[in-house]
Amino acid sequence: MKLQCQRDGLLLACQLVGVAVAGRTPLAILSNIKAIADNDRLILMATDREIGIRYVLQGVQIDLGGEAIFPFNRLVSILREASSDNIQIEADANRMMVTVGSSEYEMATENPAEFPDIPTFETPQSHELTAGVLRQMIRQTVFAAAKESTKYAMTGVLWEVDEDKARLVATDSKRLALIEGPAVVHGTVEKSGHTHLVPTKAMSLLEKNLNDADERVQVCLRPNEVLFQTEKATIYSRLVEGRFPPYKDIIPKKMNAKIPLPAQEFLAAVKQAAIMTEEESKRVRFEFEPGKLKLFAQGNATGRSKVELPLEFDGPALEINFDPSLLVEMLRVLEPEQEQIALELVDSTRPAVFRCGPHYLYLVMPLS
Amino acid sequence: MKLQCQRDGLLLACQLVGVAVAGRTPLAILSNIKAIADNDRLILMATDREIGIRYVLQGVQIDLGGEAIFPFNRLVSILREASSDNIQIEADANRMMVTVGSSEYEMATENPAEFPDIPTFETPQSHELTAGVLRQMIRQTVFAAAKESTKYAMTGVLWEVDEDKARLVATDSKRLALIEGPAVVHGTVEKSGHTHLVPTKAMSLLEKNLNDADERVQVCLRPNEVLFQTEKATIYSRLVEGRFPPYKDIIPKKMNAKIPLPAQEFLAAVKQAAIMTEEESKRVRFEFEPGKLKLFAQGNATGRSKVELPLEFDGPALEINFDPSLLVEMLRVLEPEQEQIALELVDSTRPAVFRCGPHYLYLVMPLS
Repeated sequence: MKLQCQRDGLLLACQLVGVAVAGRTPLAILSNIKAIADNDRLILMATDREIGIRYVLQGVQIDLGGEAIFPFNRLVSILREASSDNIQIEADANRMMVTVGSSEYEMATENPAEFPDIPTFETPQSHELTAGVLRQMIRQTVFAAAKESTKYAMTGVLWEVDEDKARLVATDSKRLALIEGPAVVHGTVEKSGHTHLVPTKAMSLLEKNLNDADERVQVCLRPNEVLFQTEKATIYSRLVEGRFPPYKDIIPKKMNAKIPLPAQEFLAAVKQAAIMTEEESKRVRFEFEPGKLKLFAQGNATGRSKVELPLEFDGPALEINFDPSLLVEMLRVLEPEQEQIALELVDSTRPAVFRCGPHYLYLVMPLS
Repeated sequence: MKLQCQRDGLLLACQLVGVAVAGRTPLAILSNIKAIADNDRLILMATDREIGIRYVLQGVQIDLGGEAIFPFNRLVSILREASSDNIQIEADANRMMVTVGSSEYEMATENPAEFPDIPTFETPQSHELTAGVLRQMIRQTVFAAAKESTKYAMTGVLWEVDEDKARLVATDSKRLALIEGPAVVHGTVEKSGHTHLVPTKAMSLLEKNLNDADERVQVCLRPNEVLFQTEKATIYSRLVEGRFPPYKDIIPKKMNAKIPLPAQEFLAAVKQAAIMTEEESKRVRFEFEPGKLKLFAQGNATGRSKVELPLEFDGPALEINFDPSLLVEMLRVLEPEQEQIALELVDSTRPAVFRCGPHYLYLVMPLS
């Protein structure tokens, strides 16, 4: 393989595939990336065997096609420190030479045939979303997934598709985020009853690759894996196995109060009250009454806080306790135009539901 | 104590004294700050018993003077999260109340009489520098001090004063930084033979408080301590004890080559070559020859690099090995106007001397 390309394009491509490069791995070749050069383009592939990406970099001058393994970290360092924009690469199964201006680098490489393949995208039974919508859907759900591997099924984000929409749901049993977005379905919607749980790492890799808001993204859900197709990248992920909680049963069917909240002012008030929570017991008391919300927190080692927020709310008065960090995490990922949210309460023991528009729901379990 | 002040001014004051607030300390009161309110000003004090600061915040409306201990971390959180710019504080030896708009905070406090005092500044036997000069002197030496407590005396920066200049020297035995700046001496220069080694933490606290380049800074060196006086702050530090290396004997008296180097291009070349050094043996070979510098690095697990930099240099040809990180640390703290440096070499085994103008010297021990 022999090629010339621009520094910025290759560096960006490396950064976009980087999430899928394996960190500590018994299979050393996976800490590198595979490159395939042909027809004025360079295909970069990275995988940790759970997730994988195939990224197509166009506008590359290919002097000699072929395949090679690129040492990932060192290539990124070379590109970062480069003083010139023109990068020349020569590589085979034994070594890689990189020339940047008057700087030359030589590295040992590995056999590209030993790099695991990444499945290609297939169009039947796919659905399609715009990248901007999908990016917001990921941002507003993925933080709610479980971090603990003991809640294995909940470490994935549930991906469902209906006639004209896709739905993402994430929960760690203390809170649940649900968002819907318009989708165009190709073929027929699969009604096999398979549950598709996408690992959060795959969601992060996908989100990083959604930079043009108007671009269309194809999604193909299969029984044990999912494939995403953007203009430049194919992203693959195995699915998380296990039983996801029956989320529809958890969402209360009735409510006793619907409270309008200005999102940014509410976020500021929660953070102010939370200053006096203690590390071991993060608890803020929310007292809703006609015209206002009062927030209280208290700790032996900290002190007491009392914060007031005027509200356009007629009652009835209601009290409820929350872990403030669960609210802050959601309020932080709202888009600037999502200025208003609504809180639906039954009582102090039933799940509280925050809604932002008709498509985003965030449920929080109260503390006793 | 009862007062009103502006959020931004109090938050900045807290950030400027924060370096001296003790982290983990058996004396709990030192993780907080002491405040004294009188005459439209608030004096904030912080100390970890090694270093200390007394900062004067002007333009405070004092309704009732007095002393109190302010819980440091929680006060900073309150100020950071504040939605209003007007801060009201009421405090005594038992509790502190902070009111910000419609948010109220109450915290337990301690007895201010138990907070250690911080010495006040005395003018006899002091010298004076401008803040801009002093800030650059600190930045360009402090990084070279030893981090390991086994080289105890070298964890301090040597502070010397002559008739019309001050000199800072820092070394960790692998490299040495020396810088001089103009100083006005009040009284007589002390010739007692005392060595004044200022802890790097005190230097960082001082640097953080040098924000107005034209401000004059007074320095008072005593046998076991040093005091600095800026317009708003008095900074105290105990000195590091021990014997500092006889740095004048280490600087070579002769040279066989003087090589002009463009600082930023040289920094880029060193970082490029260093990509192929290994974690355990960071070594770059520098080959100077008429018209150019060639840099080489190599590692079993990494690969090989070769970088060239054109130089206005007539010879003689010389080779020398350096740990590249020692050069990068110095090159990174140069000011933008310090475009040119000179490297003075004897041979491949003797210390190399980088000079930037007549007042800054950086010596590096070569690797064999």
